[in-house]
Amino acid sequence: MGLVLADDLLGRGLQRIQREVDAAFDAILPVPEDARASLVEAMRYAAIGGGKRVRPLLLVTVAEMYGASRQAAVRAGCAIEAIHVYSLIHDDLPCMDDDDMRHGKPTLHKAFDEAIAVLAGDSLHALAFELLAMREISPDPFIRAEMVAALATASGHNGMAGGQVMDMVADGEEFDLHTVTRLQQLKTGALLGAAVEMGAILGKVPEEARGHLRAYARDIGLAFQIADDLLDHDGDEEKAGKALRKDAEQGKATFVSLMGADKAREQARALSDQAVGHLVQHGKEADLLRALARFVVERDR
Amino acid sequence: MGLVLADDLLGRGLQRIQREVDAAFDAILPVPEDARASLVEAMRYAAIGGGKRVRPLLLVTVAEMYGASRQAAVRAGCAIEAIHVYSLIHDDLPCMDDDDMRHGKPTLHKAFDEAIAVLAGDSLHALAFELLAMREISPDPFIRAEMVAALATASGHNGMAGGQVMDMVADGEEFDLHTVTRLQQLKTGALLGAAVEMGAILGKVPEEARGHLRAYARDIGLAFQIADDLLDHDGDEEKAGKALRKDAEQGKATFVSLMGADKAREQARALSDQAVGHLVQHGKEADLLRALARFVVERDR
Repeated sequence: MGLVLADDLLGRGLQRIQREVDAAFDAILPVPEDARASLVEAMRYAAIGGGKRVRPLLLVTVAEMYGASRQAAVRAGCAIEAIHVYSLIHDDLPCMDDDDMRHGKPTLHKAFDEAIAVLAGDSLHALAFELLAMREISPDPFIRAEMVAALATASGHNGMAGGQVMDMVADGEEFDLHTVTRLQQLKTGALLGAAVEMGAILGKVPEEARGHLRAYARDIGLAFQIADDLLDHDGDEEKAGKALRKDAEQGKATFVSLMGADKAREQARALSDQAVGHLVQHGKEADLLRALARFVVERDR
Repeated sequence: MGLVLADDLLGRGLQRIQREVDAAFDAILPVPEDARASLVEAMRYAAIGGGKRVRPLLLVTVAEMYGASRQAAVRAGCAIEAIHVYSLIHDDLPCMDDDDMRHGKPTLHKAFDEAIAVLAGDSLHALAFELLAMREISPDPFIRAEMVAALATASGHNGMAGGQVMDMVADGEEFDLHTVTRLQQLKTGALLGAAVEMGAILGKVPEEARGHLRAYARDIGLAFQIADDLLDHDGDEEKAGKALRKDAEQGKATFVSLMGADKAREQARALSDQAVGHLVQHGKEADLLRALARFVVERDR
C-alpha cells in the first residue's frame, strides 16, 4: 500500500490486514461466466486493493485480543469493509458527491457506469450480511445474529446513512458544533463503533470491558473525522487519492470551519490520547489499538 | 387497495397483509426530529401503501401453515418487503430504468430527489437485516441467522441484483429462452423463493415438505415474470400504475418476444397449475397459496 508510517507495528498490522482482506474478497468473489460478469468485476474493482482497512483492523484486533479465530475475524472484517466500500461507491455517484477519483483511481461509475455502480454497491451491501450469517463466522448462531444486528443498525437510517443525509442538509444550513458532532458520530462513528462491537461480539468480551472498548471507539471515531476535515482543509490531493477542499467550496460546517484548524488539531490529539486512556486495563496486546488511535489523527490520506 | 379479485379468500388475505405491513412499517419508522427527517419520510413514502405485498403474504402463509406466530412472520414479511421496495427505488433511478411513476404516484426520486432516493433505498436495505436479527422474529438465534442468510443470498449478486444486471445486458444482446429463464429466476424468482424459504425457516418446516414448497415457489416465480412480460405487452397503464410497453421499445428479449403472447399465456397457466400440484399434501390451510398461484398469472397490475 506504500503507506509511510512512523509506527512499524501499525504499518505491519495494516499491511497484513490489507493482504488478508484482499485475498478474502478475491476468494469470495469469483467472476461468473455469464452476464453477471460485469457486476462482479465492478464489485472486485471497488473492494479489492486501495482501502486502508481501518475497520477490519479494529475488528480483528479486538477479536484476537479475546482469543477469537483470526480467520473468522477477517471474514467479519470483510463484511464491515463491504458496507464501507458500498457507501463510498454510492457516495461518489453524480447525484451524491459526484467524485471522479477514489483511492487514486477512477471512481466506479467512471470506470464502469452509473447503473453498475448502483447495483455493485447494493450487491456489496447484501454480501456483508451474507458473510456474517455464514457458519464460517462462528458455529454459534447467536454470535452471527448479534453481528448482523450491530452492522445493520450502524449502517442504516439510525447510523451511517442517517449521518450522510444530515451531512447533505448541512450544505444548506448553519450547523453548530453540537450538531456537527452528532452528524459525524452517525456518519463515521457508527461504523467504526460497529467494527469494535463486532470484534467484541466475536471475542465474547465481558460487558464491562466492552464499555471501555466502546468509549475507545467513540473517541477515535470523532478524532478520525476531525482529521478528515483537516485533511480536506490542508491535505495533499495526490497523497489522499481524491479531490480535497470540497467542504469550504460548499460552505459546509465542519470541525475546522467551526473551531479553526489549530483548535481542531488540538482536539483530535486530545481525543486520541483519551482513546488510549480507555485501554489502561490492557497490556501489549492492545498496542495496535493504541497505535491506531495515534494514526487516525496523523494520517495524510 | 381497491384490487378487484375473483377470489375472496385471496382478496381478504392481501388486504389483511397490506394493512399489517403498512402498520408495521409505520411503527418501525417514526420520523426523527432532526436532519434525518427527510430520509425517514422518503423511506415511509416508498414503503407504506401501494405494494401488493405478495412476498410478505407468501412468507406469512407458509409460516402460519406450520404454526409460527403471525406477528413474527409479519415482521419477517416487512424485512423481505423492505428489500423489494429498495430494489424498486434504485431500479426507478434515472441511471437505471428512469421511471416517473410507481404504484400510481411519482417515483421516490421525483417526489424527493435522487440523493435521498439512493440513501432511502440503502436504508431500507439495512433495515431488512436489522429487522431479521431482532429477537422479535424468534427467540432462537439459529432461525434469525438462517433467515438473514436466505434473504442476503437471494438479493445480492447471485440473486436479484445479479438478475438485474443480466436484464440490463439483455437490452443489447440476443438472449434465448434458456437465458431469459435463468435471468428471471434470479431477478424475480430468487426473492419469491426467499419469501417461501423464510416462511419455512420460521415454521421449522421439515426438509421434505420444504422441497415441495421450493418447487411451488420456483413455478410461481416464473409464472409471475411471464405474466409481468404479458402485462408490459398488453396491460393497462392506469391499472398498472406505471409505464408499460418498455420491453418492446428497448428491443429486449422477453418471454413474450421469444414465445409470442398466446404461447406465453399458456405457459404461465401451466406453471400456475404445476405450482398448485406441489401443494397436494396440504389441505385447506394451503388454499391461499393455491389462490396466489392463480392470481399471479391473472393480475392486471
